[in-house]
Amino acid sequence: MFKAKIYVNYKPSVLDPKAEVIKNTLSRLGQTNVKDVTVGKYFEVLLEGNRDAVDQQVDALCDQMLANVNMEAYRYSLEEV
Amino acid sequence: MFKAKIYVNYKPSVLDPKAEVIKNTLSRLGQTNVKDVTVGKYFEVLLEGNRDAVDQQVDALCDQMLANVNMEAYRYSLEEV
Repeated sequence: MFKAKIYVNYKPSVLDPKAEVIKNTLSRLGQTNVKDVTVGKYFEVLLEGNRDAVDQQVDALCDQMLANVNMEAYRYSLEEV
Repeated sequence: MFKAKIYVNYKPSVLDPKAEVIKNTLSRLGQTNVKDVTVGKYFEVLLEGNRDAVDQQVDALCDQMLANVNMEAYRYSLEEV
């Protein structure tokens, strides 16, 4: 059994409105030591199978369902559980 | 300078509709080896300051802005960069 930890973020060239709102709010609150904020999605998926098959399956899952690859980048790690 | 990696998830007792949709879709697609899916938010925040001050600030940020503590749990780690 593997646990896939999947991170999906906007690509750096894409404006992230949620992150901008958080940054602006913190700056208005006087927390000027906050230099950058990024917002993303985090998925944990539990899968049965061998590592190669699971790796391929998770890659397809990210590419076809979890991430909008036009605007978002994804990365994941597999951990045996 | 510290990078805070912040994870916000629904508490286990709260129904997560996005995770349910992903699980059901994968099951309909025949990917029955997928045993569980959780969906959360992932933030990265860059802050200047010493570790204790930054730790307190990030905890307050999670509690008061990033997480709805009625329904969501958060955890974070600080990494010097």
